[in-house]
Amino acid sequence: MQNAHQSRAAVMTGADQPLRVASFDLPELEEGAILLRTIYSEVCGTDVHLHHGRLAGVPYPIIPGHVNVGEIAALGGHPTDPEGLPLKVGQRVTFLDVHETCGRCWYCTVAKATTRCPHRKVYGITYSAEDGLLGGWSQFIYLKPGVKVLPLPDAVPAERFIGAGCGLPTAVHAIELAKIMLGDTVVVQGAGPVGLTAAILAQLSGATRVIVIGASAERLKQAERIGADTVIDITQVDEAERRARVLELTAGRGADVTIEASGAPRAVHEGFGFTRDAGRYVIVGQYTDHGEIGLNPHLEINKKHLEVRGCWGSDYSHLWRGVRVLAKHGDQFQWELFISRSYGLDEANQALADVEAWRTVKALIDPWKGTSGS
Amino acid sequence: MQNAHQSRAAVMTGADQPLRVASFDLPELEEGAILLRTIYSEVCGTDVHLHHGRLAGVPYPIIPGHVNVGEIAALGGHPTDPEGLPLKVGQRVTFLDVHETCGRCWYCTVAKATTRCPHRKVYGITYSAEDGLLGGWSQFIYLKPGVKVLPLPDAVPAERFIGAGCGLPTAVHAIELAKIMLGDTVVVQGAGPVGLTAAILAQLSGATRVIVIGASAERLKQAERIGADTVIDITQVDEAERRARVLELTAGRGADVTIEASGAPRAVHEGFGFTRDAGRYVIVGQYTDHGEIGLNPHLEINKKHLEVRGCWGSDYSHLWRGVRVLAKHGDQFQWELFISRSYGLDEANQALADVEAWRTVKALIDPWKGTSGS
Amino acid sequence: MQNAHQSRAAVMTGADQPLRVASFDLPELEEGAILLRTIYSEVCGTDVHLHHGRLAGVPYPIIPGHVNVGEIAALGGHPTDPEGLPLKVGQRVTFLDVHETCGRCWYCTVAKATTRCPHRKVYGITYSAEDGLLGGWSQFIYLKPGVKVLPLPDAVPAERFIGAGCGLPTAVHAIELAKIMLGDTVVVQGAGPVGLTAAILAQLSGATRVIVIGASAERLKQAERIGADTVIDITQVDEAERRARVLELTAGRGADVTIEASGAPRAVHEGFGFTRDAGRYVIVGQYTDHGEIGLNPHLEINKKHLEVRGCWGSDYSHLWRGVRVLAKHGDQFQWELFISRSYGLDEANQALADVEAWRTVKALIDPWKGTSGS
Amino acid sequence: MQNAHQSRAAVMTGADQPLRVASFDLPELEEGAILLRTIYSEVCGTDVHLHHGRLAGVPYPIIPGHVNVGEIAALGGHPTDPEGLPLKVGQRVTFLDVHETCGRCWYCTVAKATTRCPHRKVYGITYSAEDGLLGGWSQFIYLKPGVKVLPLPDAVPAERFIGAGCGLPTAVHAIELAKIMLGDTVVVQGAGPVGLTAAILAQLSGATRVIVIGASAERLKQAERIGADTVIDITQVDEAERRARVLELTAGRGADVTIEASGAPRAVHEGFGFTRDAGRYVIVGQYTDHGEIGLNPHLEINKKHLEVRGCWGSDYSHLWRGVRVLAKHGDQFQWELFISRSYGLDEANQALADVEAWRTVKALIDPWKGTSGS
Repeated sequence: MQNAHQSRAAVMTGADQPLRVASFDLPELEEGAILLRTIYSEVCGTDVHLHHGRLAGVPYPIIPGHVNVGEIAALGGHPTDPEGLPLKVGQRVTFLDVHETCGRCWYCTVAKATTRCPHRKVYGITYSAEDGLLGGWSQFIYLKPGVKVLPLPDAVPAERFIGAGCGLPTAVHAIELAKIMLGDTVVVQGAGPVGLTAAILAQLSGATRVIVIGASAERLKQAERIGADTVIDITQVDEAERRARVLELTAGRGADVTIEASGAPRAVHEGFGFTRDAGRYVIVGQYTDHGEIGLNPHLEINKKHLEVRGCWGSDYSHLWRGVRVLAKHGDQFQWELFISRSYGLDEANQALADVEAWRTVKALIDPWKGTSGS
Repeated sequence: MQNAHQSRAAVMTGADQPLRVASFDLPELEEGAILLRTIYSEVCGTDVHLHHGRLAGVPYPIIPGHVNVGEIAALGGHPTDPEGLPLKVGQRVTFLDVHETCGRCWYCTVAKATTRCPHRKVYGITYSAEDGLLGGWSQFIYLKPGVKVLPLPDAVPAERFIGAGCGLPTAVHAIELAKIMLGDTVVVQGAGPVGLTAAILAQLSGATRVIVIGASAERLKQAERIGADTVIDITQVDEAERRARVLELTAGRGADVTIEASGAPRAVHEGFGFTRDAGRYVIVGQYTDHGEIGLNPHLEINKKHLEVRGCWGSDYSHLWRGVRVLAKHGDQFQWELFISRSYGLDEANQALADVEAWRTVKALIDPWKGTSGS
Repeated sequence: MQNAHQSRAAVMTGADQPLRVASFDLPELEEGAILLRTIYSEVCGTDVHLHHGRLAGVPYPIIPGHVNVGEIAALGGHPTDPEGLPLKVGQRVTFLDVHETCGRCWYCTVAKATTRCPHRKVYGITYSAEDGLLGGWSQFIYLKPGVKVLPLPDAVPAERFIGAGCGLPTAVHAIELAKIMLGDTVVVQGAGPVGLTAAILAQLSGATRVIVIGASAERLKQAERIGADTVIDITQVDEAERRARVLELTAGRGADVTIEASGAPRAVHEGFGFTRDAGRYVIVGQYTDHGEIGLNPHLEINKKHLEVRGCWGSDYSHLWRGVRVLAKHGDQFQWELFISRSYGLDEANQALADVEAWRTVKALIDPWKGTSGS
Repeated sequence: MQNAHQSRAAVMTGADQPLRVASFDLPELEEGAILLRTIYSEVCGTDVHLHHGRLAGVPYPIIPGHVNVGEIAALGGHPTDPEGLPLKVGQRVTFLDVHETCGRCWYCTVAKATTRCPHRKVYGITYSAEDGLLGGWSQFIYLKPGVKVLPLPDAVPAERFIGAGCGLPTAVHAIELAKIMLGDTVVVQGAGPVGLTAAILAQLSGATRVIVIGASAERLKQAERIGADTVIDITQVDEAERRARVLELTAGRGADVTIEASGAPRAVHEGFGFTRDAGRYVIVGQYTDHGEIGLNPHLEINKKHLEVRGCWGSDYSHLWRGVRVLAKHGDQFQWELFISRSYGLDEANQALADVEAWRTVKALIDPWKGTSGS
């Protein structure tokens, strides 16, 4: 049985090592810190990358879980949310996983590209378990002073928020760069959590035709459910035919905007091919290094007069905007249906395996599952 | 001896065929048309591509020469310039080589990407010599009704205008997409006419450090003359060292903005490497197809949060803005010094050979050279 | 009884003169021209302004009706639509009322502000009845060569298109300038056709809260029907209280974006007051001159770091995008319900009176009403 | 005689009270703090406003002086500059007067409008003298931990930096919003420090014609010196004639971009009048409340399709970019020539009077003047 002053957490000890569950003492709260009793965390593709050691500079052992929802269990002093409102014990909140963005470096101040701040840390990714409960696959999470907390509106159930998960702020950021106009045709490459939410947000940003290209029957069924006008299964339709389908649906011109959310380098080559001249191509899915592709700069960029935007990370605005969308359109799009299964801490290895094998769209971690606290 | 009602012109009869000089009857003027007595035309890299048959859909035989300056010899009716002012016989003018942009198609009206209008024609490139005096390597040029004429201010000598040539509107367009901010560091790849003028315009757009990377002692000397802060000779400094130099000059970050004006596919790869995170990369030099390069979409676009802009063609605004710049800053930058040599019509083959071998920065065609009309 | 080679039309002979119905001979078709058999035209606020002589340079007598839908009755040659597709007799189409935008003047080419082209003419407004059937309150409309025709998709019934009417492209243009982001709060001032469609398009562009401020029970009921989150009746709620309501709904900050579509100068003052710091204010409704308001440039613009955009006219892209939206979202928003009543040509004076008195949201003109052709 | 552990400073004790010089003990340095030995401070129009109590929330007594240059006298720990480089005793630096921008509030994170952060404090304006040496009219300045320090390049003499002064970052910000294009005509209203630097930066941003409208023979002489193409003296040329002059210089269209830097509400009305249709108007000079003007929203905003931008405050990027410009173009524009006179601390009242009476363009405060430390 668990000590009331402890938190169980799933710990990733190193690349390709099985996770193990450990107990941690609950911390003292500094002024401005918050102790969150986790409601749910999520498993996202990043966690699979972490598990295989594909990200640089990860201080294993870590407690994974970068997008989380919880209930405030204790407050150090009187922290407020970014709108200046006092936070209260018992309040249901999420928070921006990115912390320590410095606000002072050249990238933060001159380039105004805070997602490239070299000082930023990410809960569940770049904090070590030795530094505390700094990931969501844990019964409690320690929010350091200054972590940007976002109270969840009543209209947003915890499950719905986790169903959207990390893909929500990422997709909001991609859509911001996509500058979709009323009446545009948007192709989304990839039907994982980022792609599906991008397909929703494209509709909510004025696109009147959204084409999702991806794989896995389960994921493509979700794409249809959330209103994609056309869904193309890459396991059934080859690349040449996919291009032909996009051109056919766009008077031979190609998509006004393409959003790459697949992670496959080859998809980038394909996207250059079916985005129209003077269109826009947002590349958000290339989160890890899978090598090079061939690019013909004359045909694919210059002559097409194309605009290409890389999209890295997200900031508080994307989370805030995403939650507003959930509160308004949640009943229509029911993000919770992206959750294929719930896993306890002891099932973390299984969760990772299922996500890697695309047996889920989104896997939820319930750190209290099977305990009396659940 | 030449008939007073005829115009001599250099004709490109086909790919890799020597040009020959022929005489054409002067045309009757339709309502709104203009007969221009050519002062100078230019030879640009495009003419070399034309001569080798590298552009699709060229209706050989053609009279090359797409950027020209002339004197109005005769008017059909009462045409006006785009500012609504009546044009007069004897006036010194240039004109936008691009004509027949339809203003009605989907690209013109909905995408507002007129350089991708499928109906556009280009003087000196996509008009056949069989259709008339529609290129500048000719003593007279026939301006069809509606051709966008631009009177040359007194402050702009004809030679200065031709020294800037086709590179001027192209570079204005590239700079427009580059969105340079005060204090930016800009790298220009390529020291040909587009690159050199881009290096000038970058300075005039707020860049406080301009680095030109290119080849040919003559061209790099021009780069220094027009104020590049750093000039790197690719024949002396290898790719790794070039990247190191750019990083060293930019606190290790890379260029805020890179403008590719080289035509070499490999330069695109290099440019991805030394443009800073969240910077902007304008690709304008890839005018013909020289094959693929390798691109790592994770490292070079996504993680860098990079913006990449293909830039194709130019429109009247670019020509108009460019001429304003010549009128204001001409004495400082003396574009006429880009002209290495003047060629008569009979020397057109030599001119092409010299441009191809980079024996010139800019070659001028004087169709009256060696005649009593010169 | 009517001659088969004639068209009946309602003619506005001058300011404050009653309209009269006259018969016109059907014209011969020039090459590229189209004869449209009118299905419906609309009555919009502009027609009321026209009737009172409030617009400058109107060549009375005119045939009003600038937004129209019809069936192609005859073709002069083989005109195509802007997507390059051949048009056919019997096809149901609309067209851009703005014609003769020159594509050559400084505003068209350099400023790229085609709605400020001094050469543009508008069907139903700046063409005289003496020049032909150039307005929609007529059984037939003569489309001059080059008029930008837009085939109506099957999914868009003629009544739905006219229910949206002139407010559709106008609102699309305003929304384009409004640059709404996901999660924004948008206030729309005015519940007439432009305001109501702007309120719809704001939702379709990512706004998660839309507040409509206007008058007339009928119009505000429509605002509720089309999904405005909050509707404020200016006849019930005074200006101070309206401001308080907006601030209360926006955490005290004010609207992220305000769209003025009221036509009342005082509304502009009010809008400055409840738009948040660093927000955006699009002023589209000030179509005629109703005099000055007071503006405090320190408090209302400078200190607020506000962006203000005037919005004049619309172009083909706005019409094209608007029709795409109708085709996609027509069943949800049912623009035809904005139509309060249908009027024949003989009832044109009544139609104008009803629109002026706000007894309708949108009045439809059916030029065949009461005839065997209806 | 002065104690070596003390700093003399000029203190503004309240609205319309004469300043007096007092001595303060030098503070202990917190970790990350810096003690700056002031080289120069400036007197700007804001100081005159402060002296008359025109700004809200000023915690008198204050030590004025928000833009300063000094030498690092002592360091608390090892602070770095925003580029991550360690700061050193003896180094010549300036710093951003704005501090405590929170980086967490809704304006900082969601609106990304940090100049509207409610937590920001400004050295020399919103810090009380009771809280320390937090203004530049003092021999030493205490830089709190986190203040954004900017090392001055060797190429920028202290006097040149102060000659530009507070007007530099303000003008950089205004120019950023002005989005000047190559070949634009820019009108600058006001020939004070902001206006003169805006006129310089407009030239460096591509404008080929810059018109300065202002008063005071001394200031207008400076406008001519720094390259304004046209200078109009409002004491000699009335409003109608000024408008006529601008239209005459712009083919009857008006300025592409107007930058208001005058502080006079009436100038805003005038600016609406001579900015061209679809142009841009940046209002930066309305720093204090001088009441309302009349605005005709139809004629001045809507029909003109005008974009208007309020511009409030500045951030570190503007200071950084401004200093880059000084380093590059300082010899050409010689900002130090804006300095009409140098004043010691005992002469602060005289300095304010001279600035208010426009007897200077820029007044410099030398806190060591007349002491052995000078």
